[in-house]
Amino acid sequence: MRRDDPISSLIDLLSRLPGIGQRTAARLAFHVLEGDEQYAQALGQALSTIHGDVTRCELCGNYGAESRCAICLDPRRDASVICVVAKVPDLIALEALGSFRGRYHVLHALLAPLDGVGPDQLPLDALERRIDEEGVNEIIIATPLNVEGEATALYVADSLRTLAVRVSRIAAGVPHGGELEFTDQVTLGRALEDRRSVR
Amino acid sequence: MRRDDPISSLIDLLSRLPGIGQRTAARLAFHVLEGDEQYAQALGQALSTIHGDVTRCELCGNYGAESRCAICLDPRRDASVICVVAKVPDLIALEALGSFRGRYHVLHALLAPLDGVGPDQLPLDALERRIDEEGVNEIIIATPLNVEGEATALYVADSLRTLAVRVSRIAAGVPHGGELEFTDQVTLGRALEDRRSVR
Repeated sequence: MRRDDPISSLIDLLSRLPGIGQRTAARLAFHVLEGDEQYAQALGQALSTIHGDVTRCELCGNYGAESRCAICLDPRRDASVICVVAKVPDLIALEALGSFRGRYHVLHALLAPLDGVGPDQLPLDALERRIDEEGVNEIIIATPLNVEGEATALYVADSLRTLAVRVSRIAAGVPHGGELEFTDQVTLGRALEDRRSVR
Repeated sequence: MRRDDPISSLIDLLSRLPGIGQRTAARLAFHVLEGDEQYAQALGQALSTIHGDVTRCELCGNYGAESRCAICLDPRRDASVICVVAKVPDLIALEALGSFRGRYHVLHALLAPLDGVGPDQLPLDALERRIDEEGVNEIIIATPLNVEGEATALYVADSLRTLAVRVSRIAAGVPHGGELEFTDQVTLGRALEDRRSVR
């Protein structure tokens, strides 16, 4: 099959998605081709317009269809707590919990000097403005527990040190169901260090 | 995030692809959203138009942009041999070999009485017409070696028994690199039965 034919170019485009190799891309392309035409068009339309249909919330950086996202517009959310996350999927994971009733601040980046991501790329001016304007009294830093996430958490905490706001970090420890025997040393060390009183 | 927002509906559409669950669909959607807009539009366009851009070859059933596919139009292909395959990806796998110089006949179906697929859904009239008109002297049946593929192979061979054409079936046996110890009994049995002389 020639490179310029429609199936091959669809396979090529699909294979540029993360985790989709040539074989999977071919399987997906033939599935779409041999399936319902309306579905193919709906998926194509959704992909073509996603950039135009979705914007970042001007306050928190979450995605939405309007200039402010559904969470920032929701008057039932607690404006006094902001949870800082690295990316929108992390926000969605926290929302799925259903227990956090505050708002978010999405960094859309983590400090990674080797990749050229420095402090300037973190939207911390906006966060400080929100702390002033929204009556925030706690910032929960929920960046990931890896090297970039920890470095970013330290940097965010440090940049807020002069403000009258409590700054916390999500707990590090042995995950639910985790066997101590198979837990890595860093996790185990932190679980021991951050132990909490049971009485 | 609400069900009717663009990201959720893109995730829903992506999760209807085979082998793509909700989590992978979300990862793909955010990858597309946070990536290059031109790529998103190119992929969307390719999906939207794939049904219109691709037709089945009127001779062999292969996909192509014209009423006859590139293989049927290629005068260097040997018209005397037709390889019968279940689906276009199988044809592509055989083409990737590079050693088969004949033409194909794509069934786009395999006998599966429980799923309501009977002999009428197999394009065997067209195959018989081609045998008459194209000077075919061998039909190689390359349907898969599973139950439906074997049943279909038997049926195709039987339907051609009155025609002056040699009918063959691709070999069944232990795959390249296969350990006998770990080969299933059916395969091993057929490999023994279909043994070939080495002198």
